Amino acid sequence: MARIRLNSSARSADDRIAEQNRCLFRRHGLAVINMIGSPGCGKTAILQRTARQFDGRLGAIVGDIKTTLDADRLAECGIAAVPIETGGSCHLVPPMVRQALARLDLAALDLLVIENVGNLVCPAAVDLGEDLKVGVLSVPEGDEKVRKYPALFLRTAAVLVNKVDLLPYCPFDPGRVRQDCLKLNPHMAVLEVSATTGQGFEAWLEFLAGLRRRR
Amino acid sequence: MARIRLNSSARSADDRIAEQNRCLFRRHGLAVINMIGSPGCGKTAILQRTARQFDGRLGAIVGDIKTTLDADRLAECGIAAVPIETGGSCHLVPPMVRQALARLDLAALDLLVIENVGNLVCPAAVDLGEDLKVGVLSVPEGDEKVRKYPALFLRTAAVLVNKVDLLPYCPFDPGRVRQDCLKLNPHMAVLEVSATTGQGFEAWLEFLAGLRRRR
Repeated sequence: MARIRLNSSARSADDRIAEQNRCLFRRHGLAVINMIGSPGCGKTAILQRTARQFDGRLGAIVGDIKTTLDADRLAECGIAAVPIETGGSCHLVPPMVRQALARLDLAALDLLVIENVGNLVCPAAVDLGEDLKVGVLSVPEGDEKVRKYPALFLRTAAVLVNKVDLLPYCPFDPGRVRQDCLKLNPHMAVLEVSATTGQGFEAWLEFLAGLRRRR
Repeated sequence: MARIRLNSSARSADDRIAEQNRCLFRRHGLAVINMIGSPGCGKTAILQRTARQFDGRLGAIVGDIKTTLDADRLAECGIAAVPIETGGSCHLVPPMVRQALARLDLAALDLLVIENVGNLVCPAAVDLGEDLKVGVLSVPEGDEKVRKYPALFLRTAAVLVNKVDLLPYCPFDPGRVRQDCLKLNPHMAVLEVSATTGQGFEAWLEFLAGLRRRR
């Protein structure tokens, strides 16, 4: 009992901070995405290409257990990128995001992407204050991930199916992924993309533009 | 304080169960591997091919958040496979393994592989009673994963670098991975394999044979 009480109290303190983060984003008219996917599914590569094609100012908060490699890659593309080394933590929590926000000029941004720790499980239920969650899958991972990790994909407004340039070399049925996503949420945007070739990025950029228009 | 005490008490109860699992394995002269890797890195595909080439009787306990898809795939290959649907839990814990063991005829097995939930973070520090941990990486994930997830790779006796058949299509430096692994542990076995083509499986089967000889 004590354990449940303590955990839920820590959780509700985090929820309050998530709400404060959200208020801060709203005050700046900033659209915010919480991006979640497996290690190596291409979250950072997607942001690198997005930065090159996005008609606006893009910022990123990048969670990793260890190293600032991904934030460094984004900074090289001109993205205002703040790394968070979580140490042992398998997902970002709202206080980490609040700390990182202090290092960003939010007024100078149109879109902020929070790149979560590579993990399909633990980040799913955690609200950081974002407008919406975007899931990232990649073709070499196989086409059954939506069925295996429903807790995440129930909460994503969009799913990017990345690395479609590898479709000729991997057994993967994009139709199955689309069907599994729409079964969980008929309004989900399922976008097939390749951060390597740029395939499918028009639809992704249109999705982002729609998100900005609603801010 | 209360939170720390409660968690550590739950942890030490789990450690006791892990020790009981280990005793049971020893009594049967059974070699046991805890296999850990990202979602979609090919853990199940590796076991499928291992089953075809392994000179002995192979059993598996397969953790997934949801679905018994992987255990079903293994059963089709003739492996005695017990699925564990963890529900919300992002990694296996010793009591789950103990429950699954009741459904296996351990005396009929030479090697048991516990395929953990797809996750590079949370399963790392958890002892299930295994002889050793084997990490699985795959080429499309990128070659920086050992640096990003050192807590796991500090604990693995071997790392399988899977999907080397995709090397022509993905930027990936196997030498970098090997170097990062050996920096963490100079005795680590780093094996490049492809579960699709069978490349590198001789070395993996030799590794398993060595493990059995030590039982």
